[in-house]
Amino acid sequence: MKAHIITIGDEILIGQTLNTNAAYIGEKLSEIQIDLKTTSVVGDDEESILDEFERCWLQNDILIATGGLGPTHDDITRKCVVKFFKTELIQNKEVLENIKILFEKRKREVTKVNEDQALVPKIAKVIKNTRGTAPGLWIEQSDKIFIIMPGVPYEMEKMINDFVIPNLVKKLGIPELITLRKTIYTTGIPESTLYERLGDINELLNGSALAFLPSQFGVKLRITVREENEEAANNKLSEIEQKIIGKAGRFIYSRDEEALEAVVGKLLKDRNLKIAVAESCTGGHIANRLTNISGSSAYFERGIVSYSNAAKVELLKVNEDVLVEHGAVSLEVARQMADGVKSVAGADVGLAITGIMGPSGATAGKPVGLVYIGVCDDNVCTAKEFKFGDDRLLNKQRASQAALEMLRRHLLGIPLDD
Amino acid sequence: MKAHIITIGDEILIGQTLNTNAAYIGEKLSEIQIDLKTTSVVGDDEESILDEFERCWLQNDILIATGGLGPTHDDITRKCVVKFFKTELIQNKEVLENIKILFEKRKREVTKVNEDQALVPKIAKVIKNTRGTAPGLWIEQSDKIFIIMPGVPYEMEKMINDFVIPNLVKKLGIPELITLRKTIYTTGIPESTLYERLGDINELLNGSALAFLPSQFGVKLRITVREENEEAANNKLSEIEQKIIGKAGRFIYSRDEEALEAVVGKLLKDRNLKIAVAESCTGGHIANRLTNISGSSAYFERGIVSYSNAAKVELLKVNEDVLVEHGAVSLEVARQMADGVKSVAGADVGLAITGIMGPSGATAGKPVGLVYIGVCDDNVCTAKEFKFGDDRLLNKQRASQAALEMLRRHLLGIPLDD
Repeated sequence: MKAHIITIGDEILIGQTLNTNAAYIGEKLSEIQIDLKTTSVVGDDEESILDEFERCWLQNDILIATGGLGPTHDDITRKCVVKFFKTELIQNKEVLENIKILFEKRKREVTKVNEDQALVPKIAKVIKNTRGTAPGLWIEQSDKIFIIMPGVPYEMEKMINDFVIPNLVKKLGIPELITLRKTIYTTGIPESTLYERLGDINELLNGSALAFLPSQFGVKLRITVREENEEAANNKLSEIEQKIIGKAGRFIYSRDEEALEAVVGKLLKDRNLKIAVAESCTGGHIANRLTNISGSSAYFERGIVSYSNAAKVELLKVNEDVLVEHGAVSLEVARQMADGVKSVAGADVGLAITGIMGPSGATAGKPVGLVYIGVCDDNVCTAKEFKFGDDRLLNKQRASQAALEMLRRHLLGIPLDD
Repeated sequence: MKAHIITIGDEILIGQTLNTNAAYIGEKLSEIQIDLKTTSVVGDDEESILDEFERCWLQNDILIATGGLGPTHDDITRKCVVKFFKTELIQNKEVLENIKILFEKRKREVTKVNEDQALVPKIAKVIKNTRGTAPGLWIEQSDKIFIIMPGVPYEMEKMINDFVIPNLVKKLGIPELITLRKTIYTTGIPESTLYERLGDINELLNGSALAFLPSQFGVKLRITVREENEEAANNKLSEIEQKIIGKAGRFIYSRDEEALEAVVGKLLKDRNLKIAVAESCTGGHIANRLTNISGSSAYFERGIVSYSNAAKVELLKVNEDVLVEHGAVSLEVARQMADGVKSVAGADVGLAITGIMGPSGATAGKPVGLVYIGVCDDNVCTAKEFKFGDDRLLNKQRASQAALEMLRRHLLGIPLDD
């Protein structure tokens, strides 16, 4: 069973609008085990649309098109469907009724342009649009299915969930295989090192799939299993997951798709600990992430963005001699900042960061990307050196992720050196 | 001249990742008058990729593919390119050198897997990757061009701008019409109000195009003019721009695509002023944005994230009686925070914010979304009430934008109301 999605619209082609529709439909199809091989985007041009219909209808069993069903001059999808199937337009009473009710609700008059939206290709079944005026179309021919929906995401999504997916499931019979997915979040380990650590991938997966999704926050591992029933799928998934944990456990911060700030937030809350954060180079990025979590006021006491040396001395009790001797970007200052912010705030844990984010600010022996992170509680006070890249904003993100990971490991008692 | 973009990756097909790459490239191509007819997405499957290469290479003059160039088992694009062009892989010394330098910087050892990324198809010219290890490829054959780039947006975007677009422009000769674009950034005015303010759009544009691009940071207005020569295009553009300034001037914070934090940063720097920021509800978001700007240490003295009342009293000298009488979320506390952070830091300007970001935290008479922003210098000390929505993260972004806009107007002496 091969399926293809065609998204119609110039605004998608030239990048004015992101193609969220194809992503949404792709996800829904994969949930019912319909495999997409390809998707495509075509502009508001009759010849291109007809070419694409021709090609994709030949190569697939299910074809889903969205967009170009509106009332204006550049909406030509319905016209193309009529040409493609050599059919004609007829007025559909239910659709017309739906349009009239909708306009009455909005206290607007129904014009000729609106009434024309009730014209549907003779061979099509109508997919009711409960959120707008343009109906969807469902066409069956030569054991194939052609589905056409409006491009407005809010309207299309309702049609997909209420009509298209249930009808595809019914039409195609109960799926034989159950698909389950799980995504494991890692940080502090490069993609290639993680890949090597996992050893023989085929042995690990035994027929299932694993995707590596890297970003500046770390590498996400997405496991996909397909089995005959839910139990087998669950067993397979947890078997692979356990193997990955065995090989890269300490780098894993979430197995529930949670951001690192949410994970450390929970740890702090569970342990009833208050945290204070002192940031130099990240400039508030860590505090911002920690306070993105609703309820963070329970454990986040304060943050200090100590950009100036004066602020480091006044607010964080950093020793002036140490600042002069080691420089603001040093292991010793990171440690003193963490200890200082903890005691000044009366918090249980202090987290601090100092570094050079670039592009300017490098000095002899202290290149752009050099960062020191300190973590202190009442028993332990430690700091660590990191080296990131040249890009200021990426460096802020990488450094804030490293700091939160250092905090996570500190709270869990996992050694800092990988 | 027909062009096509192929995005490779299961994560795009099944909707886990939005196809931002095709949108980005589509926009860049449209800027140099290369019209896309279609784009497509294909999964990490050799047969599907080769089929797609075959079809699109036949039908187009320029083919651009992204994704699947990484070091792991599911990255098979390079292998497909080799098969498709019946060529072979050879080691490229410059690429290997680039990988070694990158790893040395990051203090990582170069493994076999990394070294293999220096293997490139014999017939390809290398597009240097200054932001990662996988090189891009540029292949010319039978008067056609095939370009392959990594799927990491940050790496791909650099290659598009530095190499692909300039080389396409050179290769294809100068375009007949000159397209110029300008984007004007506004904030503090809703899209519909802005639209009405601009009056008769057709009269304003006289054949040119205007796009309204709304986000939580405000509405961007993108003007596109196409004229026969550079002078005519420049004149047309500046004519439209002047009309827009006349109608919505005070809401415009940038005509050079600069973020608001960069605009206020310049104003502070030019006036030789130091700023200190006190944040409650935005949790460091404003400090983070101000310090995203390189060189911000010249004017950003410190930031205080005073989540607790204790921090507001200790660090910002907010009067305890005022806190009890008016509550932490009040006009008076916002003013005292701004004044306090200014004087404690010895800065010239103090900016402060307090509010309820949600979903929890609302009290009688103080709903989620209520925010107070204060700005003080040595002469003026003022605060203003704002009402935002229900979404925590959006509220943080909207509130930080409103605070920076209030700062901008304060520095320029533009009245705060409307």
